[in-house]
Amino acid sequence: MERTTISYDKLYGYMVNMLEKGLKYPRESAEITAKVLVEADARGHASHGVARIRMYHDEVSKGLNHPEAAAEIVHETPISLVINGNSAPGFPTSKFAVEKTIEKAEANGTCMTAVRASCHFGMAGYWAEQMADRGLIGWSFTNTLRASIPLFGRERLLGTNPICVAIPTGRKPHFMLDMATTTVALGKIEVAARRSGVMPIGWAVGENGKDTENAVEIAKISRFDQSPYGGQLFLGGATETLGGHKGYGLGLLVELLTSGLSLGTPGYNSYQKRSDMNHYFQATRMDLFGDAKEIKNHIASIIDRIKNSPKAEGHDRIYIHGEKEFENREKSLKEGIWLDPATWLRLDEYADMFGIEHIVP
Amino acid sequence: MERTTISYDKLYGYMVNMLEKGLKYPRESAEITAKVLVEADARGHASHGVARIRMYHDEVSKGLNHPEAAAEIVHETPISLVINGNSAPGFPTSKFAVEKTIEKAEANGTCMTAVRASCHFGMAGYWAEQMADRGLIGWSFTNTLRASIPLFGRERLLGTNPICVAIPTGRKPHFMLDMATTTVALGKIEVAARRSGVMPIGWAVGENGKDTENAVEIAKISRFDQSPYGGQLFLGGATETLGGHKGYGLGLLVELLTSGLSLGTPGYNSYQKRSDMNHYFQATRMDLFGDAKEIKNHIASIIDRIKNSPKAEGHDRIYIHGEKEFENREKSLKEGIWLDPATWLRLDEYADMFGIEHIVP
Repeated sequence: MERTTISYDKLYGYMVNMLEKGLKYPRESAEITAKVLVEADARGHASHGVARIRMYHDEVSKGLNHPEAAAEIVHETPISLVINGNSAPGFPTSKFAVEKTIEKAEANGTCMTAVRASCHFGMAGYWAEQMADRGLIGWSFTNTLRASIPLFGRERLLGTNPICVAIPTGRKPHFMLDMATTTVALGKIEVAARRSGVMPIGWAVGENGKDTENAVEIAKISRFDQSPYGGQLFLGGATETLGGHKGYGLGLLVELLTSGLSLGTPGYNSYQKRSDMNHYFQATRMDLFGDAKEIKNHIASIIDRIKNSPKAEGHDRIYIHGEKEFENREKSLKEGIWLDPATWLRLDEYADMFGIEHIVP
Repeated sequence: MERTTISYDKLYGYMVNMLEKGLKYPRESAEITAKVLVEADARGHASHGVARIRMYHDEVSKGLNHPEAAAEIVHETPISLVINGNSAPGFPTSKFAVEKTIEKAEANGTCMTAVRASCHFGMAGYWAEQMADRGLIGWSFTNTLRASIPLFGRERLLGTNPICVAIPTGRKPHFMLDMATTTVALGKIEVAARRSGVMPIGWAVGENGKDTENAVEIAKISRFDQSPYGGQLFLGGATETLGGHKGYGLGLLVELLTSGLSLGTPGYNSYQKRSDMNHYFQATRMDLFGDAKEIKNHIASIIDRIKNSPKAEGHDRIYIHGEKEFENREKSLKEGIWLDPATWLRLDEYADMFGIEHIVP
């Protein structure tokens, strides 16, 4: 029988086991990692879901990160933290960092946290959401593996460097902007490569730094790091006409706030001896600005005014950031999480490698 | 003899006089307003320069703001401020807000400041730069007059809502990202309207919410607020293909941090009885993250690595945000500030209105 959906709890339990048995993650690390991956699939973001077992396995087997390592605080004030991830997996490190950030913010009003020598932490939104769930404004930035081209350059020096900000609205969902600063995720270029081989202008430039529609070339360059040249573009593309300098500026801002403030390894030197990702978190209590409930209501009213405004021809809904993911998650909890056929097969592949039974919904 | 350039000090002095005599700004308000306007022209941002005397005159003469009013603190903690601008001009209000923000940040590590009932504060970069000049990381956001369309909508509900972040690098210039979250400034659409009448797809949508190249229509709608429908697009344009949901998300984020946190009037209700702009500032001490000098050096090294990387075909320079403005300013200080012919004439027009002699370089 073809496998399609699976319950949240079952997938979560299976992934905890995979990570513990297969990757030798300590139990707690396996739990938070499984949690964030399953949350991504539940929200419809398969790009950050359980199929990433491959990436996390690669990192461990190449010695780029060390499941038994643990993050530590290397500098702190009442409103700030610097954390050295010591090349432990990015999920337990981020859990530690975000919990400490929340603790300080609740006690002292805000906390800003720079993390170095971490690894991939999954979707940025999960971490900002932890803060918003406690009524805090949550910021979550990370640099990533080099993927993208500074405007007018041709060397891949920056990552997809996402920005995430979650603002409580007094109801669910929070306002939650969670965006790569590149035009699209690499996953979209790979899909285009598999399907038609071409992609829209504005997604990437070739090795000469000029616009390209050749998705096959860019997918190959990016995935296998075959050449230092050519790669993804930031929001606004390769010219100033559509604001390419702005998207590139946002990507660079994320790099400076993550690897810059943490004294971490910049994205262009990452994944050599260690994974070396760097994050920046900020949590801020809303009552710094007065009555938190009144502020949340005001924010909700602005959101409602926009949602309820007239729609463009051919559209019947204006989305607020966070809504799609929230609705997908509700559906997944009710009907099960849908995984695509390739993901089911990948789970089997790694189960075989780890000597674990195949997952059965 | 045709007027072309003028010395910084002469233009500044002239503008102080214009604002004091013509708009009845108190001396200190005239000084900070003239300063920020002249700084914009010196940096090559004529859109935010002295030609804006028209806009500030309009606001005062329509009673939308009150030069004799003064901003006041309505809520504070050791690391936050809420300021009511009381419809005073935006420049003295922002000067007050930023000075207080810097004071608290220097004493307590950081300060986040929400400002309501302010007016237009000129270029966002000036304010973030004040913080960076003191070695602080400076954030400066503002909402603006309604100009832009939420993705899949057709009503102008959001402004051009700029994001500015300045990060000290231990040398000049700072890293300084100062960007409207819309694809371009309205000024660019007006220039396109005057020249060819057409603009690139991705800058705006018409009254039906669909892509348009008709710059004349959009310039008219936006400048005279003739219809609530049609207007500018956010970075990424009118579709998700090039990331329109991301630009729209950034614009909405700015609205929520400015009018949301300050309990201010949202952009879509501004410029009715009062100007009603709202700002958000944040200043953060770099030693929250360790040795500030070491961090600045590390940030400078990341910037240098990017600047010195190979260039795309047809380009000979990769810019870092803040460089162009810094270089323009150096040139203006040496050679004088260049004003375009329309700006010279506008200054004369208002000088006549105010009974002041024409400006002579």
